[in-house]
Amino acid sequence: MLTRLLTFFAVGSSVVLCQVQPALMPWPASVSVQPGAVAIGSGFSVSVSGGGATDGRVTAAVERIFERLTRQTGIPLLPRVAAAGQSATLTIVVESKDHGAPQRLGDDERYSLECSNGRVRISADRPLGVLRGIETFLQLVQENTSSTEVGSKGAGSAGAGSTDAGSAGASGATAAGFSVPDVTIRDEPRFEWRGLSLDVSRHFIPVEGVRRTLDGMAAVKLNVLHWHLSDDQGFRIESKKYPRLAQEGSDGMYYTQAEVRGMIAYARERGIRIVPEFDMPGHAASWLPGYPQLGTHAPPYQIVRGAGIFGSLIDPTKESTYKFLDGFVGEMAKLFPDEYFHIGGDEVDPKEWNQNTRIRAFMAAHRLADGAALQTYFNQRLLKIVTRHHKHMEGWDEVLTPGLPKSVVIQSWRGQESLWQAAREGYQGLLSAGYYLDLMQPASKHYAVDPMKLPQETIERLQKKNAPIPGALTPEQQKLILGGEAAMWEELATAENLDAKLWPRLAAIAERFWSPESVTDPVSMYQRMAVTNRWLEWLGLTQRSSLELMRMRLAGDLPVGPLDEFASVMEPVKGYARHAERYDIFVPFNRLVDAIPPESNGAREFREEVDRYLALPQGQRDGAALRKRLTEWGQNIDRVRPMLQTETLLSENLAAADALAVLCRAGEEALGYLDAGGSGGAAASGGAPGDWKARTQTAVAEAAKRKGDLLIQIAPGVEKLVDAVAGPGVQAPKETGEDDQ
Amino acid sequence: MLTRLLTFFAVGSSVVLCQVQPALMPWPASVSVQPGAVAIGSGFSVSVSGGGATDGRVTAAVERIFERLTRQTGIPLLPRVAAAGQSATLTIVVESKDHGAPQRLGDDERYSLECSNGRVRISADRPLGVLRGIETFLQLVQENTSSTEVGSKGAGSAGAGSTDAGSAGASGATAAGFSVPDVTIRDEPRFEWRGLSLDVSRHFIPVEGVRRTLDGMAAVKLNVLHWHLSDDQGFRIESKKYPRLAQEGSDGMYYTQAEVRGMIAYARERGIRIVPEFDMPGHAASWLPGYPQLGTHAPPYQIVRGAGIFGSLIDPTKESTYKFLDGFVGEMAKLFPDEYFHIGGDEVDPKEWNQNTRIRAFMAAHRLADGAALQTYFNQRLLKIVTRHHKHMEGWDEVLTPGLPKSVVIQSWRGQESLWQAAREGYQGLLSAGYYLDLMQPASKHYAVDPMKLPQETIERLQKKNAPIPGALTPEQQKLILGGEAAMWEELATAENLDAKLWPRLAAIAERFWSPESVTDPVSMYQRMAVTNRWLEWLGLTQRSSLELMRMRLAGDLPVGPLDEFASVMEPVKGYARHAERYDIFVPFNRLVDAIPPESNGAREFREEVDRYLALPQGQRDGAALRKRLTEWGQNIDRVRPMLQTETLLSENLAAADALAVLCRAGEEALGYLDAGGSGGAAASGGAPGDWKARTQTAVAEAAKRKGDLLIQIAPGVEKLVDAVAGPGVQAPKETGEDDQ
Repeated sequence: MLTRLLTFFAVGSSVVLCQVQPALMPWPASVSVQPGAVAIGSGFSVSVSGGGATDGRVTAAVERIFERLTRQTGIPLLPRVAAAGQSATLTIVVESKDHGAPQRLGDDERYSLECSNGRVRISADRPLGVLRGIETFLQLVQENTSSTEVGSKGAGSAGAGSTDAGSAGASGATAAGFSVPDVTIRDEPRFEWRGLSLDVSRHFIPVEGVRRTLDGMAAVKLNVLHWHLSDDQGFRIESKKYPRLAQEGSDGMYYTQAEVRGMIAYARERGIRIVPEFDMPGHAASWLPGYPQLGTHAPPYQIVRGAGIFGSLIDPTKESTYKFLDGFVGEMAKLFPDEYFHIGGDEVDPKEWNQNTRIRAFMAAHRLADGAALQTYFNQRLLKIVTRHHKHMEGWDEVLTPGLPKSVVIQSWRGQESLWQAAREGYQGLLSAGYYLDLMQPASKHYAVDPMKLPQETIERLQKKNAPIPGALTPEQQKLILGGEAAMWEELATAENLDAKLWPRLAAIAERFWSPESVTDPVSMYQRMAVTNRWLEWLGLTQRSSLELMRMRLAGDLPVGPLDEFASVMEPVKGYARHAERYDIFVPFNRLVDAIPPESNGAREFREEVDRYLALPQGQRDGAALRKRLTEWGQNIDRVRPMLQTETLLSENLAAADALAVLCRAGEEALGYLDAGGSGGAAASGGAPGDWKARTQTAVAEAAKRKGDLLIQIAPGVEKLVDAVAGPGVQAPKETGEDDQ
Repeated sequence: MLTRLLTFFAVGSSVVLCQVQPALMPWPASVSVQPGAVAIGSGFSVSVSGGGATDGRVTAAVERIFERLTRQTGIPLLPRVAAAGQSATLTIVVESKDHGAPQRLGDDERYSLECSNGRVRISADRPLGVLRGIETFLQLVQENTSSTEVGSKGAGSAGAGSTDAGSAGASGATAAGFSVPDVTIRDEPRFEWRGLSLDVSRHFIPVEGVRRTLDGMAAVKLNVLHWHLSDDQGFRIESKKYPRLAQEGSDGMYYTQAEVRGMIAYARERGIRIVPEFDMPGHAASWLPGYPQLGTHAPPYQIVRGAGIFGSLIDPTKESTYKFLDGFVGEMAKLFPDEYFHIGGDEVDPKEWNQNTRIRAFMAAHRLADGAALQTYFNQRLLKIVTRHHKHMEGWDEVLTPGLPKSVVIQSWRGQESLWQAAREGYQGLLSAGYYLDLMQPASKHYAVDPMKLPQETIERLQKKNAPIPGALTPEQQKLILGGEAAMWEELATAENLDAKLWPRLAAIAERFWSPESVTDPVSMYQRMAVTNRWLEWLGLTQRSSLELMRMRLAGDLPVGPLDEFASVMEPVKGYARHAERYDIFVPFNRLVDAIPPESNGAREFREEVDRYLALPQGQRDGAALRKRLTEWGQNIDRVRPMLQTETLLSENLAAADALAVLCRAGEEALGYLDAGGSGGAAASGGAPGDWKARTQTAVAEAAKRKGDLLIQIAPGVEKLVDAVAGPGVQAPKETGEDDQ
């Protein structure tokens, strides 16, 4: 129960906080909360006015408000759009239309939102600002609590109640129902490029999955979907000009052009640009089964069904390659209206080029010293093609080689150093390093990464090498840093658990890109992210429900409760630890490690509680709640063990159950010693007898190691407890669950 | 934890049972299980042969197998359809095509299914049998347990494992993965009409909701969707000929004809007929805003936003009415290909007719004695129209009046007496009485209702009146009973919680219609229904997840766990108890009573355990597990109470929390007395002191009463425990939670 209690207290205090601070994410540029609230009931209505009122994105967003509010509140709302001038619960004023062309980098997204006197008002200069403001408004809607003071003047107050459509809204009374707090918000983004790079090649994500992702992105004010459409494992888009790309490069799993057009429209309605990526000249195996003439050797070619960096490259020495690419880029440039076009360019292993006599001869003739030089040659030819089709070219770090024109945008997977270097050289850039969601890191780790700040690890690494620490960028160079992109690579994820790999951590990254640089408190972030995570469910996102179903599948005919409880302290191994396994794209990702969130809230809360406990002087400590939690986790092992023994897909987790038992017992014993003198009432000495400490440290260190692909994330907390017990211990370096393993 | 434990044991034993008896629902006509199993892995393939192999329903169903197996197992399957003659994991043989016309009543649905030697074979004479057999096959797929013996000969065994596509399928070894048990099944339905009557008028159900319902229906082998498209509260279908029907009669919530055509095709692909119902001449208020000339008085008319029986009738005396209906029925008869056409005909209150001078004059002129006679006149005119458009007319009980042609099918909401009477008179009929899912009755209650058996209550009622008990039907009359239809009226349900109102109880009714008459054991039904309920989730049904989300909404920012636990022993009030409340169709159904299943498994298991406990002689009783469960429910009240006090939509449930506390304490105390001499170790006397029993009986009777719209369904169990304690008690008649209140 401790988790429940902790959660209860933690969120309980955030509820109190909510009277002051609504759980908005990303946090706006400026928020001021007043007492009072605007009722949201069955009389809810919207009016839209201003020069931009007829913009299609605005009218579609207004229609969605009714649908979404109905879902969020359970109040059946008919779309009531008041005529201009008529009073409405929500008044939207949008100054003017924008350029009317496809959404562009830098389009105005500012808005202000004011709730007072029973009315809500969103004002924006341009349509995109309205879209952002509406998301903020929807995040503000909350169930009235006994302390909510709902204002009486709003048209929307009628029918705020649950069963009685007419009685609510009486002055000062708190009706059962929903409201938004009185608040004044001025908001605008810190960065103008706030993206998600989504790999749909290594595992295909069907249309609905991408749409759900766009819904979620819009909800946290991200504005670029970078669609990684081709890689070694699959070519995921129909080309009319080169139909064999998808036909022979995708196992039948690709988007038709009609679907792509639909997706672009869907994204545009939500204020999101779509930038396509076609990775070249490496990560290009899926081009070649259909068009082997693009490759360096004779057919046959096959798409790759494993992971990693593979050898099959596009041949940059043939003129026919550029003719082909001109046709392909031309077709795609027409299909995708965005101004940017991503050509990948990462991770080229030039072995295949170097081994080819014809290519070596070409390199010699063109004085291209090595593979990197040949890739630069390729990039420059490709740049001409991309430019001819009126696009700005974008590429990963590696495309930045001497002589690259300044119009190319660099996306950095290597880090701030590399990004800043590009900016110093005059290139625009985006940061993706530190935002790789597939590495299963906690939200706080991504949240701490800032495109404009060198990470402490980088500084320390450079100091160790006695290398110079990069100085601050000039204001002009800073402007070249456009923002960042989270990245989700799909080697180990599938359409089934995609949402859980993205959410809610992506919301924390979205806040990094949108909110002022000063918004960095992880405690507030976790509190608001928990609320945002629930709120996102009303959009139909499945980060919770899909994993629940997966665990139900694992449990077979047995009730899933004990497995849920067992899994609640587990996390997948971090970084690239799991990638080392042999797998191919048809391997089932249906194991427990696939069915748990990347971050365990229960374990995090336990570790935080341990820190609070240990921070108190010995006499004031009370470990009862912590001990109770450990006891419950421990007792649950007896309930889950029969399931692990019976269900064949779960049996690999017996080692984790054994290790969890060790950790629970060790933690309980440690608390017994540490509580001494406190209300826990254990041994009064405060120290453990004999070799308990050393023995337990050894056992705990063993239990803290990865078990299969799982980490038991209460381990670091238990280690701290054991270490804190007086007595002779071991000094051996310990592996903890928090490290990449 | 007792619930968990009980569930564990209960389902645990069903797992053991599953080695012998797979959890099929509806239970087939004949099942024989052998040791062994066929592996289902990434090499899974299907072959289809026979004269019916190219039937569109068969090919579509085969495609869906891959999709559905991927969801059920998490194994990514590419559609592998083997050429005829090639070996495959699943071989489907379908003797011949059927008539090619729209599906008809009585179309052959027989199939046989055989799993052995590593292969599965489905054989059927006609396409529908294949569809039914595929559902049975998918229900058979289960995760291997440590005792599964997976055969080695199947092509499908490759890749049965979780991470290793090649290693599974070794002879005799149990790989981690999935399989179907070796089994021989011969199956055919008991009744040929197995339907669900779905009201989409009182609350509109959008297209996706109806599709999900069709998915679920097909999964449990139901074959008729009776689509109740018009009622007082809304006209839910576009008419091209009379567009104002939907435009002015639906608040914009209706199906376009394109959507209807899509739905008919969707249903046909799943072996389901769609019979439309347009309720006339009563329940007809929604026809009249657009076409007031159909009514009895001058306009304006409005659609009804409340519930119940309303006055606005169609005027049967005007010739223009029949001209209109001829046009309308003609249009709908073309749109809906099914041979049957339902004209409603229920619950006509003739007041409006009787008060109208013109109509009274018409009745006198035509020698129509009363409203019933006028309705018969209307029905006979309507029958001519329906017949002219080549449909069989269907109507509710009331249409059966003297002189009604024998071609009309009677749907009985009144009961077997009325249905049997119709059969004796030579009419075909369907039973719906006893299958009303909106009345929130337990599955067992519906399951016990059989169209061919008079309910015990009916017999007793007739005996009391000294009325004759209807004798058995002749074999010929029995053939006129075509089957039955569950009914879901939507006064108190919405699109949000529809799935939870239907499922899993509808699966129990489906078994009544499909399985042999002898299949009646409720214990087996509940065990298999629990498994089926989980299995249905892989189709995307939301009976669990939608209520979870609704409870999360009620919990506001607080963790929902305590509310889930609190709600787990609650059920909505039964029968028409809740209908008495004032409500209209825009009232929010977002309260706790809307967010819980109709039937509480936890409470049912508690009551069953009480019965087992009390059945033992006093010395052998051990109430520890029951007491523990009560203690946990009781302790949870302290956790949920702050939420009930804080969240405004929950505060109405404080009385239920108080009552639950009374029940838990009373049950614990009673167990203490009853355990005496057992391991419980309470007072050794076995009797309670002083006035404990009488006092507690009074308190428990009070706590057992409805609290708002909730019943606390452990109350009957607690009452039994208290009553069993020795000592002087009260003899007053008690209300229990099981009665309709």
